[in-house]
Formats: sequence, structure tokens, C-alpha cells
Amino acid sequence: MDLTTIKDPSFLKAMSNEELENLSYEIRQFLIEKLSVTGGHLGANLGVVELTLALHKYFDSPTDKLIFDVGHQSYIHKMLTGRTSQFETLRQYKGLCGFPKMSESEHDVWETGHSSTSLSAAMGMTIARDLKGEKNFVVPIIGDGALTGGMALEALNHIGHEKKNIIVVLNDNEMSIANNVGALHNALGRMRSAGKYIRVKEELEWLMKKIPAVGGKLAQTAERIKDSMKYFMVPGMLFEEFGFTYYGPVDGHDFNALQENLQYAKKTEGPVLVHVITQKGKGYYPAESDKKDKWHGVGPYKIDSGELIKPQSAPPAWSSVVSGTLQKIAKQNERLAVITPAMVLGSKLDKFQQEFPDRLFDVGIAEQHATTMAAGLATQGIKPFLAIYSTFLQRAYDQVLHDVCRQNLNVAFGIDRAGLVGADGETHQGVFDISFLRHMPNMVIMMPKDENECQHMVNTAVQYNQGPIAVRFPRGNALGVPMEAELKTISIGTWEVLKEGKDAAILTFGTTIEMALQAREQLQESGIQAKVVNARFIKPLDEKMLEELFTSGLPILTIEESALQGGFGSAILEFAETHGYPIENIRRLGIPDQFIEHGKVEELLAEIGLTTEAVVETVSKMVPSKKLRA
Amino acid sequence: MDLTTIKDPSFLKAMSNEELENLSYEIRQFLIEKLSVTGGHLGANLGVVELTLALHKYFDSPTDKLIFDVGHQSYIHKMLTGRTSQFETLRQYKGLCGFPKMSESEHDVWETGHSSTSLSAAMGMTIARDLKGEKNFVVPIIGDGALTGGMALEALNHIGHEKKNIIVVLNDNEMSIANNVGALHNALGRMRSAGKYIRVKEELEWLMKKIPAVGGKLAQTAERIKDSMKYFMVPGMLFEEFGFTYYGPVDGHDFNALQENLQYAKKTEGPVLVHVITQKGKGYYPAESDKKDKWHGVGPYKIDSGELIKPQSAPPAWSSVVSGTLQKIAKQNERLAVITPAMVLGSKLDKFQQEFPDRLFDVGIAEQHATTMAAGLATQGIKPFLAIYSTFLQRAYDQVLHDVCRQNLNVAFGIDRAGLVGADGETHQGVFDISFLRHMPNMVIMMPKDENECQHMVNTAVQYNQGPIAVRFPRGNALGVPMEAELKTISIGTWEVLKEGKDAAILTFGTTIEMALQAREQLQESGIQAKVVNARFIKPLDEKMLEELFTSGLPILTIEESALQGGFGSAILEFAETHGYPIENIRRLGIPDQFIEHGKVEELLAEIGLTTEAVVETVSKMVPSKKLRA
Repeated sequence: MDLTTIKDPSFLKAMSNEELENLSYEIRQFLIEKLSVTGGHLGANLGVVELTLALHKYFDSPTDKLIFDVGHQSYIHKMLTGRTSQFETLRQYKGLCGFPKMSESEHDVWETGHSSTSLSAAMGMTIARDLKGEKNFVVPIIGDGALTGGMALEALNHIGHEKKNIIVVLNDNEMSIANNVGALHNALGRMRSAGKYIRVKEELEWLMKKIPAVGGKLAQTAERIKDSMKYFMVPGMLFEEFGFTYYGPVDGHDFNALQENLQYAKKTEGPVLVHVITQKGKGYYPAESDKKDKWHGVGPYKIDSGELIKPQSAPPAWSSVVSGTLQKIAKQNERLAVITPAMVLGSKLDKFQQEFPDRLFDVGIAEQHATTMAAGLATQGIKPFLAIYSTFLQRAYDQVLHDVCRQNLNVAFGIDRAGLVGADGETHQGVFDISFLRHMPNMVIMMPKDENECQHMVNTAVQYNQGPIAVRFPRGNALGVPMEAELKTISIGTWEVLKEGKDAAILTFGTTIEMALQAREQLQESGIQAKVVNARFIKPLDEKMLEELFTSGLPILTIEESALQGGFGSAILEFAETHGYPIENIRRLGIPDQFIEHGKVEELLAEIGLTTEAVVETVSKMVPSKKLRA
Repeated sequence: MDLTTIKDPSFLKAMSNEELENLSYEIRQFLIEKLSVTGGHLGANLGVVELTLALHKYFDSPTDKLIFDVGHQSYIHKMLTGRTSQFETLRQYKGLCGFPKMSESEHDVWETGHSSTSLSAAMGMTIARDLKGEKNFVVPIIGDGALTGGMALEALNHIGHEKKNIIVVLNDNEMSIANNVGALHNALGRMRSAGKYIRVKEELEWLMKKIPAVGGKLAQTAERIKDSMKYFMVPGMLFEEFGFTYYGPVDGHDFNALQENLQYAKKTEGPVLVHVITQKGKGYYPAESDKKDKWHGVGPYKIDSGELIKPQSAPPAWSSVVSGTLQKIAKQNERLAVITPAMVLGSKLDKFQQEFPDRLFDVGIAEQHATTMAAGLATQGIKPFLAIYSTFLQRAYDQVLHDVCRQNLNVAFGIDRAGLVGADGETHQGVFDISFLRHMPNMVIMMPKDENECQHMVNTAVQYNQGPIAVRFPRGNALGVPMEAELKTISIGTWEVLKEGKDAAILTFGTTIEMALQAREQLQESGIQAKVVNARFIKPLDEKMLEELFTSGLPILTIEESALQGGFGSAILEFAETHGYPIENIRRLGIPDQFIEHGKVEELLAEIGLTTEAVVETVSKMVPSKKLRA
């Protein structure tokens, strides 16, 4: 069929399972082809083709609420709800979002991006349904990786307690983003293998009758045995303990099995968990055979070979620079341990893991635990380096504040994907970490201008023993500058003048330094000499340099690829206020008080006016008059 | 014995269980007496007297690491480690902290305050021990309430997976802060009742032999039955599923039982969970018989009657005003639901719960889930009011940002204990919420000047339908002003001039308004007329009034009982910068970049220089010269 003609999922109701199988094939071919051009989350979506079709056949979206946890596996859902023709714009500026988006469709009832939110959202929708006296099904679809996130476990605990009708679909593909971590995963493994025994219930009952009649204490014991039989018949006993009725394990690529179990689930009172086993990358050999989950999120690729189409000879990724430096340090320093919450590949720590398997701790999707565990390590003289994306560090705000900063422990944070991240969009932009870390006492925050400075900052963070310290770095590739062989440490709170200038000072750091330097050249053409400062410490500030700057009376422009509220520019304003300097000629450029959607970073910067032109214009206005801008 | 002579716990090693029982009695009498004067967490500590003695007898602190989750139950630990004579200063300024504190003793190896951190900390210490090749026991002691916090569950999952030696002591008193919530609690209940069957293992095996020999498929079935027996013999099967060896349930007031199980635990390889049943308030009848957990944290009381000594006819508590207003609104508005994370009593929601049991959701200690569940409710047209302490909202930073603000959902937050909280100290000060909420797009933040404005703000929050909105209010009692009968709504982003003045403007909100008014009177004596503005909206600002103020050129002082970095004063600086107003005559008073320990709020304010005198002095300096302060 022509997939682009699909307007809504109602046509599925009349389809036989055989027809659904054919449709599955067509959808897979479509995704493999389209994503070979745009890139995207191929593996996860190929794994849930049948499951998504079955959910849309046996439930009535949007009356019934389908909630995709994390949401990168919602492509088939998007196709079935009238968005197939937009896939050429996937994850592009003003194009189809890579995650569920309410503004795209009424079928997207909840927006995701960060993991483990679906169960809580579902519980809210369930309570609302019951308060309003309405009837519908609420169906969160959560992966085995996302289930280990603390808030999902909090929700599981509450849902099991409240006993409301809610159907949790556990999409178990035996890996979170890479291989799964944790006892829960082991328990799921036991459930999968126990599955084949699920149909022996009758035999069991027959057998039980053969237990001889006994009196007294032993009769009681025999009763107990019968009770305990439920644990034998129910492989999902862990979930039963949590108060759920468990169905499964179900073959997630078998329409008959999906039909049977989803229909059971709909008829069951109270919370239900349907345990569906799927295979990530199903139907595309390169993705199917991928044990390391490199096909989780991919760029463009050649369909036939599965070869990724990459720009030739690009500079190293920032995360490679960081992990490479950690490897170098770990050879000398036995007290270094590295922690990642399920991002061994994303943070490019696979080589570190190979070389130092005992000093790399992948805790699964568990940012809170990762952070406080780092604090625990630090109390015992081990130096933890927590490699974490800026956007996911948000999950551990309280742990950074209450456990690390308050106890002033020597924890190093490597904050990856700081600044705008591009195609992943608003749920993943790393633009808040400066604003939320800057008010934490004892915290040091730095950002390098290039990969050479980055290696020295990583080293500085590891060597630092006065409390918590963070080095933040952007997504993508570094600049390609030469790397010094010897690792140095950078004196805390020192900035660096990159270019001198007598008419204005531009204070910036990280990615926007290039913008400042370009603006400086253009300003020079109109006779304005702008000083450019690498303000590499966002906290503490270089107070000595600031005093000189303020004393000299130069107009000051701050630039940051980060939220303006409470950000670096505000730190400069606060400094001026505290030290009694006038602030009439300070301006700040940065990310305004709004969420920034997906698109190329350049497109997003242009949209919010964070450009070389804006820098030139702002400085030009500040210099000639030195008067009030009213 | 004279308890004040105890220097360290080594004397316990030689004590018989009978002697320990006598010591327990003396410790209880001591606590009941001392806390009747100082107040403190009596109930929890009376519950763990025997457990703490046993832990210090069978482990060697500080080589072995005893980690008290939450930490309010560490009083006996403090007594055994040389701090008995300091109990008269408990929770007082410069006195003994109510929580573990590294600076007090080497036996306090981890500082707590917020719940659910102990397992992650323990895992960090365990990994450090093994990396360093040392031998010691790491023993987190966690309550059944704290166990439902997401990060504790994340840690449980990781610990069970890693299989390292770690001994978790589950202190199960069948209530978190009030009654426990959640499926996990129900599972614990089953474990408690299953306890009596734990010794029938031999009988069972005898019985199993009587199952007739069968061939083929059924032989396999019989094997499976034998496997499943472990679930029968092990009441802690839930924890076994997580990879722990379970011991229990253990009577936490029986030294023989404690001895036996702790010694088993020490000999066991891999992670162990010892399930100890204790009774909160044990040994003091008023606390023992307290079903509502009013004795969790108490002020001074009369020992004989258990009657609390309270100031007569105090104004209502802020939280009572809020919950009373919610009750009033709920009568009219069927779409209001109230959510609390385990704080029905703390947030004084017990009456609301009685009147509207179906619209009060206590989710247990689970701030993340509480917040995202609220977001889920909001998507379906129910208005959730999340009653939460400022310091605990830190746990839900990402949920507020990613789920509520990003989706711009109509969630109302009632932020209790905003500002300094006093005796609970640095882990509980509510001084960061402005700094961490202000950079979240779409968020509205307000704070009332008195309880009458508070009721209108609660009403405003419930009526508001443009996105998230927060009303923050302090700990303790309100001012005692008359309450208007009719609930109003306050126009978003509007401030209120309380006193006119032509020489300077003081912008402040909440608790510090009183300080500003007093300072104004004193300034008047030296001829300075200060305008005082109730800046009740911290976000959005009253831009109209600010423009008038800046245009008039008045010196501006901001005062906030909140962190200065990224706070309200910074918002004013940012406003001035954005709108091109000069900032040479703006000053900010607030909480500096440090953690604030326990003590009376007045003492703490004096320590950080947030006083009427400081306001007078600062304004005086700003007015006469209007020049640079250098």
C-alpha cells in the first residue's frame, strides 16, 4: 500500500494478521530507506513495528492513551497517524520531530525525550480518567532500560499500590541503549527463560493432587506450597510482587501472540504488565546483528552494506578527546574511576572500558545513583569522573547539590553535549547546566576553547582536590588543533586574553569563541578594536581580570550558548553589582527564555539571533556612544 | 552508666545482651528527657536503640562504614561516638546537628538529610574499598519509606547486579514519615507475615520426597516445583529477585535475633539485605501509640503526659493556610487534585484528605514521580496542586523542567519551607528554588507577604491556565493578619507598592518585607524616604513598575531570603541590562554562595548579614552620594 495515504490508524481494525505482516514488511523497507538519508533512531523502530501495529489495532488512539517512553521509537506511530510523507524532514529544522510532539498530532498525548517518564504520566492520566468518570485505556510503552530509571520504579511502586486499570507494555529488547545493567535486567532474563513453562498450569494442579494428605503442621505446609505455586506459574513474579498482573513473555514479532495478550490485558482489572520481547534492528541485517547498539541512533548509511556515510578525516569528537585523556591519566593514576549512566558508546568510553574494565562503572539509566555513588567513592579517596550529558545531569540536580557540593567532595563531572545539540531537539539541548550549577556552593565550572585545552581541563578536573569540578564540552567534533603531548593543569579561575583590543571586551567561552573572533575581524574593518577573552572558568570568575576590565571602563559583551537567566552573563552583572562597578555598558547575548526545538545548530543560533552579525552589531552600538541604550 | 563518659563504641564489644538491654533503657530515658526540652526526631530514634547498639557491637566503626539514610535516626549513634554531653545543644545554633555531620566525628562517614541516598553512597564506598584492596564492611541503614525513593531503587538494582559485598539493613517500621505508600510496602507486609514460616525448611523437604516419582514432562515439572520452593522459604523473595541474600524478618528489639542475623550477614558473600522490624517511638507510650506519626519530629513536650508545649494562640501555620484554601476551592472545583510526596502531616493536608480522600494522592517519598504524575493529570484537564517542600523539589528539577515547563502544562506547585528553615539545617534550607526555577521557560513564581495574600495566591495558582505556576511560602506560622472571606485572583506579574518614598526603592517579597518596613522606619529618622515594594512575582517581573522605577533613577535595593546567584536580585540586574538601564545604583542582599547550617532563623540571618541594620546601612550609603561604591 501507499504508506503516505495513511491518515489515521483506523484501517488496521479490518486487517488480518497476514495483512499486518505484509504491512510490517513495507514499513520496515520505508524506514530503512528514509533513514539511510536522514539518519535517526533506526534500531529501536525496526524492533517495534509489529508491536506498534498491534497497539493501534487493539486500542483506539487518541481516546486510549499510547505513551511512548523516551519516544525515539515512535516513528511507526507517526506513520500510522498521518505523518509518513514528512519523513524526509525528520529531525531537521522545522521538520518532523524525532520524538512525540503534541503540536504534530492529537495522537501524541505526551512528549518524551528523557527516559522513564511514561509510567508517571500514565498514572496521572489514569487518575484523571477515573476522577472524570471516563472509560479509556492508558498504555505506557516502556523499554527494559528505561525501567531502571528511578522515577519509573517510583511509579511502578505507586501504580501497584493504587490498583487502578493501567496497561504497562514492557518492550524488552535486552539492551537499554547498549547492554542493560542491573538486577532487574537479570530478573527479566529469568522471566524470558521461564516463559516456556507458562502453560503447564493444568499439569501442576494434577500433580499437586498427588501430594499425600497430611495433618497438623504439615497440612499447613502443604497449603503454603500451593500458594507458592503462583511463583512457579508466573515468571513475572517480580511484577506480581509489585501488584501487577503479568502477561508474558510475548513474542513481539508474532501478531497472534500480541493479539492474545493485549486482549487479555484489556479484560483484566487493576494494573497489568505485558512483557513483550522484541529484537532491536529486526529486519535489517546490519542493525539486527549489532551487539554494541551502534544502530541505536545513526547518521546516513549505505543500505546494501550498512556502511555509515561519514565525512572523511573529521577532527576527533569531543567525547573521544575526553575519554582518550581519561585513558592516558588512568595509566598513571590508579585512583581514577569513571562512571557512566548507560552511555558507554555515547560518551565513547568503550576503549576505556576495554583497557580498564574494573574502573569503568556503567550503572544503567540511573543518573541520580551515578552521582551519589560518585560522591561515595570520593569520600574514600577514589577520584570519580562522571561522564554525563548536560541534559541528563538535570536528573541529578539534587544529588549534585545535596550530596556532592554540600559535602564538598572531590567529584569530577564531564558534561557532554553542553550547548545546543541539534537534531535531538528541545528535550536534549544542554543549555541549562550553567544556570543550575552556578548557584551551587563549592562548584567549579569550566569549558575549553579547543580539544587541546579540553585535555588539560580533564586533567585539571582529575587532579583538583578542593571539591567538585565540572568540565563541559559540546556535542560533535572538535576543531582539529594540534594536541600537546604533556598534560597540564590550568589554574582555577584564570581566563585567557585571546586578542587584545582597546575599545571593547568580549567575554565568552567554548563554541562561541569562534563567533567572537570572527566578529572581531569584522569590527576591525570599521576601526573598532575588540579584546576577546576566553572566559574558560564560568565559576569562579577571573576576578583579577574582571577588575582590570571594569577599571579600564571598556564596554563588555558576554556571549554564551546557554540560558541567559542566571547564566554566565548574569554572573558578570552580579560581579559588577557586588564590587560596585557601573553596569551601564554591559550587554549579554545567549539563549532567551524559551525552549529551542530541533534543527542544525547554525539554524537554531540564527533563529535566536546568536550570530556573528549580532555580536558585530551589539559591539558597534556599545562603542561609539558609550551612552544609555534607551 | 554515665552516658556522657562514652568516648567511642568499643566498650560494647564486652557487653552481654542483658547489659545491652539495660543500656537501651538508659539511652531511651536520656533521649526522652533531653528531647522534651530541645525537641527533635524522637520517634525514629526510640525505634533504633537496640539496632544501633547491635550495629556498633558487631561492626567496627569507622573502619566499617555505618551510613544512616535520612539521618534523623542517628542520635544513638552520636551518643555512642562521644557526643552525649552535647545533646542540650541539639539542632541549635553552633550546636549538635540533627543529622550525621563529618565535622562532628570520624564515625559520621556520610552526611544525610534528604532520603534515599545511603545505598548509592554505600555502593561508592564498596567500589572504593575493592579498588583499594581493603577489607571492611559497608552497612547502609535505610528505612522502608526511604526505600521507595527512586534513587534507592536505582541503587538496589545496581548493587544486586554488581554482586559486591555490602550489607543493607532495612529498618522497617511500617511507616515512612506517616503511613507508607506503595506496592513495595505491601510486599514488606507479606514478608513480615511470612516470617513465621521461615524455619519449616526441613519439613518441606520431607514433604517433597512424598511427591510420587513421575516420568517425562511431569518429572521436569516436579523439578520446577522444587526450584520454586525457594520462594516459599524465603519471604524476601523480592530482594532475592534483585540479587540480594535476604535475612529476616528480624525483631529489631531482640538482641539475640540481631546478633544472629548480623553475624550471618557478615559471613555471606555478595549483597545482603537484613530486614529488621522496629517500632517507632518504642519505650515511650505517647510516641509508641502514635498512629499518625506526630512524634516523628517534635518540639518540646511534657514527659508525663506527652503533651506538646506550644506557644498559646499562635497565628496559623503557612501550610495550614494553604491546605485550608485548597479545601475551600475543592468544594467548588471538582477538577482540583492535590499531590503530596509522603507529607500529608508536614503539609497539613490531613483535613483535606479526610474531606476529599479521592482527590488527595500521597505517592510516598517519590518527588520525581509526584511531579510527572501531576503533569500527566494536567494533560487531561485535571488541575494538580503539588504540595512539596522547597528542598525536596530539588529532587524533581528535571521533571519540572522537562515534563511540566517544556510541555507548558497547568501544574500548580505549593512550595513549602521556602527560605531558611532553622533547626533542620543545611540539608533542608529552602534557598535554591528561585535560582533553579527562574531559568525554566514558562514558569511563574510568586510569594505572598502574608496569609491573606497567600490564600489569594493559592487560588490564583489553581485558576491559572497558561502553564506552570508556583506559590512559595515559608516554614512556621503566618503573621496573624485578618483573612478576607472571598478568594481573589492576583494579576500575574503585578507588584504592589506598600510604602511610597522618593529617595530609594526596596524591592522584596515574603519574609523579608517586614525587614524592609522596619528599615524604612529607621531610615526615615535620618531623613531618607524609602519606597517599599512587595515584589510578589519573582517571575515574571512587574516590567511596568520596573520601568517607572528605572526611569525615575531611584537607587534600588533588592532583598531576598534566597541564594543570590541567579536569584531575584539577578533578575533585576538582567532586566536593567536587557532594557538598557544603568545599574550603577542597584544593590542586592540575600544568601551568599555558601551552605547555611542549623540554628534559629534570626541567628542565621544575623550570621549572613541579612538584617534590618544591613538594609539601613546599604540604603544609607546608596542615597547620599549616588556615586560608585569602590
